[in-house]
Amino acid sequence: MKALEEKILKEGKILPGNVLKVGSFLNQQMDSDFIMEIGREIARLFAGEKITKVVTVESSGIALAVAAGIALHVPSVFAKKHKSANMSKEVYTASVYSYTHGETYEIAVAKEYLSSRDRVLIVDDFLANGNAVKGLMRITEEAGATLAGCAIAIEKGFQGAGDELRAKGIRIESLALIDSMTESGVTFRA
Amino acid sequence: MKALEEKILKEGKILPGNVLKVGSFLNQQMDSDFIMEIGREIARLFAGEKITKVVTVESSGIALAVAAGIALHVPSVFAKKHKSANMSKEVYTASVYSYTHGETYEIAVAKEYLSSRDRVLIVDDFLANGNAVKGLMRITEEAGATLAGCAIAIEKGFQGAGDELRAKGIRIESLALIDSMTESGVTFRA
Repeated sequence: MKALEEKILKEGKILPGNVLKVGSFLNQQMDSDFIMEIGREIARLFAGEKITKVVTVESSGIALAVAAGIALHVPSVFAKKHKSANMSKEVYTASVYSYTHGETYEIAVAKEYLSSRDRVLIVDDFLANGNAVKGLMRITEEAGATLAGCAIAIEKGFQGAGDELRAKGIRIESLALIDSMTESGVTFRA
Repeated sequence: MKALEEKILKEGKILPGNVLKVGSFLNQQMDSDFIMEIGREIARLFAGEKITKVVTVESSGIALAVAAGIALHVPSVFAKKHKSANMSKEVYTASVYSYTHGETYEIAVAKEYLSSRDRVLIVDDFLANGNAVKGLMRITEEAGATLAGCAIAIEKGFQGAGDELRAKGIRIESLALIDSMTESGVTFRA
């Protein structure tokens, strides 16, 4: 998605530790029209896949999952990172290690929101080491649902998880696929 | 908003401790078309208010803030609940006590995403004791921004915070305003 690559080059900031900060339009602050454009692009890519549910993990995936859900006219569900007081105890869970925060957390989806009749599209803002996406895939499997694929805004291709999943036959659509990232700039896969 | 009241009566579950669970369409699972309908209703209510930014707090407010931002064609910003490794240290913060979780947490918005030129619309899924909204109001004030008002999906009117804020001259628009809630049902303010 050319518009996303251009936005990354214009507004993205590269911080130490391979961190690409896109908080001005994709994370903490969300460029609404652009988020909706991404949602429509995801819907276009997965049209015909009979998606019944968009699944993501809180918090930074929610905006894109909502936009994709709106464009596909199907519900979106977000996995919670902490067990919440008003959440059903009947949950699907997976452990996820976060390199960003250096800790393992549980993600959970209430069983009532995911079933074996669902065709799931996993959506997230970033794919780097792939731990969050793999956790969502385990939850999808636990629910007996069918995984149609994953739609990612920005893939850090140089960290390998995207290609590892593709090699397993999983459809990974990344709207911007970064091949290398240094302090002097970002290179996208041709 | 009649459609929201009907959805609460049909799908909402009342749990002990005055908890209204609307996870099937507003929180953990989001009914996409309906979320967008709420976004358009919020935009209609605040049309002419020259809103420049929709502000909420993670996680459950994000979907509505995104939908309102899309409908208003302005960016939305979410306050983070925990200081994140890749967030600027230059943040506006406020302490918020959560009755649901029985703890105080910090909410923070990076200074670069909110300024004195902004006209802010605060959006959240619930208004009960008002602590989250008041925290967002303190952050808005700290930024020198102008508060245009608050748009809330579901106000628990019997907890009083909404009317307390209205008495101070703050515009609070709740799409469903619950006057009483017992195990036998929900009554909306006429």
